[in-house]
Amino acid sequence: MPVLTPAADDFPRWYQDVLTKAKLAENGPARGTMVIRPNGYAIWERMQAEIDARIKAAGAQNAYFPLLIPMSFFEREAEHVEGFSPELAVVTHGGGKELAEPLAIRPTSEAVIGEYMAKWVDSYRDLPLLLNQWANVVRWELRPRTFLRTTEFLWQEGHTAHAHEHDARDYARTILRDVYHDFLRNVLAVPVLVGRKTARERFAGAANTMTCEGIMRDGKALQMATSHELGQRFSRAFNITYASATGSTELCWTTSWGASTRMLGGLIMCHGDDHGLVVPPALAPVQVAVVVVKDIDGAVTRAGSALAERLRAAGARVRLDANVEQAFGWRATDWDLQGVPIRVELGPRDLDGNAAVLYRRDTREKTTVGLDGVVDAVLRLLGDIQQNMLAAAGARTEARITDCATLDEAREAAQTGVARVPWEVVGPGGEEDLAASGVTVRCLQREDGSLPDADDDAGALAYAARAY
Amino acid sequence: MPVLTPAADDFPRWYQDVLTKAKLAENGPARGTMVIRPNGYAIWERMQAEIDARIKAAGAQNAYFPLLIPMSFFEREAEHVEGFSPELAVVTHGGGKELAEPLAIRPTSEAVIGEYMAKWVDSYRDLPLLLNQWANVVRWELRPRTFLRTTEFLWQEGHTAHAHEHDARDYARTILRDVYHDFLRNVLAVPVLVGRKTARERFAGAANTMTCEGIMRDGKALQMATSHELGQRFSRAFNITYASATGSTELCWTTSWGASTRMLGGLIMCHGDDHGLVVPPALAPVQVAVVVVKDIDGAVTRAGSALAERLRAAGARVRLDANVEQAFGWRATDWDLQGVPIRVELGPRDLDGNAAVLYRRDTREKTTVGLDGVVDAVLRLLGDIQQNMLAAAGARTEARITDCATLDEAREAAQTGVARVPWEVVGPGGEEDLAASGVTVRCLQREDGSLPDADDDAGALAYAARAY
Repeated sequence: MPVLTPAADDFPRWYQDVLTKAKLAENGPARGTMVIRPNGYAIWERMQAEIDARIKAAGAQNAYFPLLIPMSFFEREAEHVEGFSPELAVVTHGGGKELAEPLAIRPTSEAVIGEYMAKWVDSYRDLPLLLNQWANVVRWELRPRTFLRTTEFLWQEGHTAHAHEHDARDYARTILRDVYHDFLRNVLAVPVLVGRKTARERFAGAANTMTCEGIMRDGKALQMATSHELGQRFSRAFNITYASATGSTELCWTTSWGASTRMLGGLIMCHGDDHGLVVPPALAPVQVAVVVVKDIDGAVTRAGSALAERLRAAGARVRLDANVEQAFGWRATDWDLQGVPIRVELGPRDLDGNAAVLYRRDTREKTTVGLDGVVDAVLRLLGDIQQNMLAAAGARTEARITDCATLDEAREAAQTGVARVPWEVVGPGGEEDLAASGVTVRCLQREDGSLPDADDDAGALAYAARAY
Repeated sequence: MPVLTPAADDFPRWYQDVLTKAKLAENGPARGTMVIRPNGYAIWERMQAEIDARIKAAGAQNAYFPLLIPMSFFEREAEHVEGFSPELAVVTHGGGKELAEPLAIRPTSEAVIGEYMAKWVDSYRDLPLLLNQWANVVRWELRPRTFLRTTEFLWQEGHTAHAHEHDARDYARTILRDVYHDFLRNVLAVPVLVGRKTARERFAGAANTMTCEGIMRDGKALQMATSHELGQRFSRAFNITYASATGSTELCWTTSWGASTRMLGGLIMCHGDDHGLVVPPALAPVQVAVVVVKDIDGAVTRAGSALAERLRAAGARVRLDANVEQAFGWRATDWDLQGVPIRVELGPRDLDGNAAVLYRRDTREKTTVGLDGVVDAVLRLLGDIQQNMLAAAGARTEARITDCATLDEAREAAQTGVARVPWEVVGPGGEEDLAASGVTVRCLQREDGSLPDADDDAGALAYAARAY
């Protein structure tokens, strides 16, 4: 009996099996919430570290704003309140008393951060104001699914204020490219489609939403990260103004951008296989498991431990598994489930032969390497696996994309993958048509892959798919 | 006019001034909540990094549990619900509807984590289970004060389950000593009193609470971190059991332990002075500010930049301040406010003399050093400042402690500092007496400084003080 339901048989059940068997997460007691277990959280911590370093390199500073936001704050920006009202969790009682004004648990923090930006920005010298926070948010979910749609999730949300429209425009694109796209491609090994959202799919209150869309193994799309130009809507609603060099009072231009624990779902569904999770080396909390196959007098364990130390000294993230009381097969299955990129297997016979077996999780191939060459071989293999996972995911994504010339063709193609169709063929009307059959326009892209500047950019291509 | 209200004139107002002028934090829109600004959050991130590394070294793994906890969970442990009920924030509406069962925002996570420990522990082989989470919690505060008592705060909370009482006992002490005491003393440079809480001051539901108490510059105590033995109360309430090696079903012994953003308040009040914050080098996000005093042709800025690079290469956390359009005095005042341990000041005349001025924030002394010797001098000075700050805080703490033989003496001494008085002189009755005049027993310690094993440990000394 296989450990997991085969993905080809029942993809949602396979996904659920991976979550459970790899001990990544499970449902929380309140509907739609989740518990992120240590195996899942260790991956999230690595995601945080990689993204946080890129955000800081882009000049933003971390801060923290309150979880609880007075309801009146939301009501200041009309589209924002309309978009988020149905999803709010509301605190009506505190300290044993009913509150005079109910408090919303933040579903996102534009409203509260807008209030403080207005206080902190006086003159053009205070701009740009580049803030980010790592936080939990709550959005009531009708159809919750672990990591993909949960009532509470963890994320980072960046919020910036700029003097001019082009500054905000450039910064929102810098974040999209240098933080999200770079992380998703070069760390997560997910070859995302980068594009502009249609008016229908925009963030509530945004003038322009840009997205990174990953294509999962079942052909469905997953929005992995978004960056929004908010125009002057929030600065008008919250009075975020600055004195220009000439002394005039001007409204700021703001942006916001976020990526969440949803990326853990993307990791599973983009790279996972029937043996479990497959984690790219650049992301993996454990890159190499040194596994003592069996041992009689402690000699193999000592050799394994020494090997683990040499690998650590070379900069790899290593775990030693010398738990020889448990059957090797059981442990190998578990390392597979957790998606650790490389296993170095060492048994008494290997040691006699002064060699070890290298197992790579992505292709499940084994090779035998002399003990002196293990460190070099592992470092080389980590790089190979990273490249191979991106290339393989790229090939799978390409194979899912079908060029379509009509709305009917697009609807058909989107049943099993992604339809690439001229936006002028779809348009807002066609988009509603597609939505009726569960297909959404994930993003618009120019033919050269660049971002359209407007909703009706001539020659833009629409990518339409079913989505998580 | 001084930048800050002098601490000797009005300590609470001085504290508030430091928060504002150093741009550390301000009040949130909902009562009792706070906004942690980038200057404050950067310090919190350093606290997190240092504590997180120690927690991982102690073998615990990070995980994440939900913010929202069904009210019924709290009711399972009688003392726990009694302690926390008055402080709960309650969500009654979600997704536009009234909820069938109200959800509490976690004030702490023993209840929800107990539920999952019960699922995850089967046999003695699963023990110890060592978990930690970094999270926000909400406790309704009647007298909020930024960092010290806020309705929402950030913290880490560790939760562990063990097979035997002595395992839980040892682990709670390991965390107290190797995580909290080590961090507070060697990073935060706060010479805390480590002791046992009296029954009156224990965590709601704990069998034993151990604490690290810092003495602030005004003589009041601040609880900086606590570690609790929870006995079998939560394992009984949540049915956290394991099969022993002989096959019998046994209740686990659990612990919990936490430290929060309150430590930022302790940092300010233990080390701060009339010029602002003073941050110990081991903690400081910026250890050295290289300040270009003035510049005409860019030569000083180039030299400052090169110096900053050399300091970075030597491992220091460095910021270059070449903002010569702003007056030097204004910038020096601001670096003082932020508490950056060392300034390296470089002006045209210094450069001509091939020298720079080193300013140390703790004593506010200046020395001139040849440019070739700056890196060595800075590294040495960082170590000196760290030692000096701990020694100075230790001397201030000692000076505040008065040995007392009677309850009246203790009450008197605790008006301006800490009374050290035999616990047998105080007792639970005397403790209530003291509480009536705003004095609490912060902790019990044996004469040799070790932790009492019981509430009535013979020869225990009580430390009594006013407290934040």
